[in-house]
Amino acid sequence: MKVKVYVTLKDSISDPQGTAIQGALTKKGYEGVESVRIGKLIELELSDRPEAEAKEAVEEMCEKLLANTVIEKYTYEIL
Amino acid sequence: MKVKVYVTLKDSISDPQGTAIQGALTKKGYEGVESVRIGKLIELELSDRPEAEAKEAVEEMCEKLLANTVIEKYTYEIL
Repeated sequence: MKVKVYVTLKDSISDPQGTAIQGALTKKGYEGVESVRIGKLIELELSDRPEAEAKEAVEEMCEKLLANTVIEKYTYEIL
Repeated sequence: MKVKVYVTLKDSISDPQGTAIQGALTKKGYEGVESVRIGKLIELELSDRPEAEAKEAVEEMCEKLLANTVIEKYTYEIL
């Protein structure tokens, strides 16, 4: 079963990488680029299991390894 | 208008970062983690414009800056 995890910086955390890309896009002539935020997309292939079990495992993986929950938040979808 | 861009490695490209995380998850006792692939989630805030114009601009930004189209592929959604 496929799971997509989206890890992004919490809104209160500044994103220098995003700001740099915003500057580069503007310099290249793209107008109206008001903000850019960079996050991680983590695609997991897990062995088949009941959805509730998958949810529990994914949340634990996020809390313990995939996201730094001090500065990051995460969402996920089980496909 | 908000645009989410998902940049991932082409399937034929190996992903050492993903493999390392897969190993770490398995070592931490998570069973059945068959594969892990890491990509980028880029959240753009663009000034309002017709959807066709937004699509054209986003595709150009992806081709020229946001994705390395030699090894990466991208998808996006306009929210």
